[in-house]
Amino acid sequence: MKFLEKYRQITKKNSSYVCIGLDPHLNMMPESVLRHDNPIKAFNQAIVEATSGLAAAYKLNYAFYLASGRKGIEALEAAIEIIPENIPLILDVKAGDIANTMTHYAKGYFDYLKVDAITVNPLMGEDVITPLLPFEDKFFFVLALTSNPSASDFLKKGSLYKSLADKIDKWGSGQFGAVVGATNSSELDEVRKLMPNTLFLVPGIGAQGGSLQEVMSYAAGEKEPLLLINSSRGIIHKSKENNFSEAAREAADSLRKKINSLL
Amino acid sequence: MKFLEKYRQITKKNSSYVCIGLDPHLNMMPESVLRHDNPIKAFNQAIVEATSGLAAAYKLNYAFYLASGRKGIEALEAAIEIIPENIPLILDVKAGDIANTMTHYAKGYFDYLKVDAITVNPLMGEDVITPLLPFEDKFFFVLALTSNPSASDFLKKGSLYKSLADKIDKWGSGQFGAVVGATNSSELDEVRKLMPNTLFLVPGIGAQGGSLQEVMSYAAGEKEPLLLINSSRGIIHKSKENNFSEAAREAADSLRKKINSLL
Repeated sequence: MKFLEKYRQITKKNSSYVCIGLDPHLNMMPESVLRHDNPIKAFNQAIVEATSGLAAAYKLNYAFYLASGRKGIEALEAAIEIIPENIPLILDVKAGDIANTMTHYAKGYFDYLKVDAITVNPLMGEDVITPLLPFEDKFFFVLALTSNPSASDFLKKGSLYKSLADKIDKWGSGQFGAVVGATNSSELDEVRKLMPNTLFLVPGIGAQGGSLQEVMSYAAGEKEPLLLINSSRGIIHKSKENNFSEAAREAADSLRKKINSLL
Repeated sequence: MKFLEKYRQITKKNSSYVCIGLDPHLNMMPESVLRHDNPIKAFNQAIVEATSGLAAAYKLNYAFYLASGRKGIEALEAAIEIIPENIPLILDVKAGDIANTMTHYAKGYFDYLKVDAITVNPLMGEDVITPLLPFEDKFFFVLALTSNPSASDFLKKGSLYKSLADKIDKWGSGQFGAVVGATNSSELDEVRKLMPNTLFLVPGIGAQGGSLQEVMSYAAGEKEPLLLINSSRGIIHKSKENNFSEAAREAADSLRKKINSLL
């Protein structure tokens, strides 16, 4: 199934545009979880069980698994295994290399790990994109505009983010989405106009202080929302107590409802 | 030991500025290697044994290991194990994320995998760089100017590569190097002037058609070479026969001598 089809089905079924970021921090987990042989694995299992009826997608940040070495990679594979088939699974790797190398990344992420989508860093240009086209059912969220302070060093210096948005639109909304941080309204408005049909993955709500209201007003698509609003720590690490998965469920549901009320 | 110190010692000891790219392609290995339980591991072992007296560094491209799943990661760990301690080991991952995420990548690459250096994608700005500073003995080759055709999409459109070079120089040559592709002489000259004391990692000789002579004339530093010239396929896959490691040794030695004759 094409990625966008999967996205449309799950957002309808779960009435949700919430992407849950599974970026597990060991120092934010309850003692009871840390006693497990593979704490990250146990933690994710509880979170996914508690939230899968409320999620529009899960996003796994590769760094948080890699940091634990082989145990982390094992936990990553286990998480991919337990996330229900009908929920899009995004691996956040910001892959950005050319030709042959990009094909090998894609093989690793899609054929071996079997995720549905990855994030992509387009700095090296279209040569990063071309090797991805044969992976027809897969999806690529390309960095376009981020909300971190130093986005002004390069992305927002001059009009780089606009050139990026132009290209992403040209590469086609069937396979290419955009990472658009929760930044100010005029920038959100600008990038949405440049990419009218593109699915946006929006980090930076909550932890990074972006305004959900501005995102919903300026970044949503005209005919359909075309958004995935990511929250990581704000959901999965809402509580460090034994009730962490229940707290995560409540946080996810609360964000889900807030988003829906702004649609 | 600081990375640059290690670089200076080995370039002197081996009279070499050759960085050998261990990017193993299964379809370019001899039958005898493919019969091994873990062919990549066996292949790398033979290559490193044959070339370690001629190398100034080894560069391992993460994608080529990831593509083989767990066996690939095992082979990556094995390669890191067998590369002699006194030869700098660069993991080519083009990591580019912010804050907490970058710290987790660094933990995975430095504390767990124990490499000496990584490549970094600076698109998101200084927030990518700051989390790396505490890893004082480690080194970061930041993408500055690449030689792939679509470098013109963003890097060479306007003056992005010059802004990047400016920043890399500012971040400091003690921890930050630059990835500078084997491109034309005026661009090489430009970036060297912007980064007079920065170690350049230069891919694109051979396979990508860049001219070694132009690189040596325009990209070398004034007081010391400050270069690592990378060759991957041109060395490790020089022969697909049983003599592949001997052929790799000869190719590495020939490139080593060519570089030295141009110094």
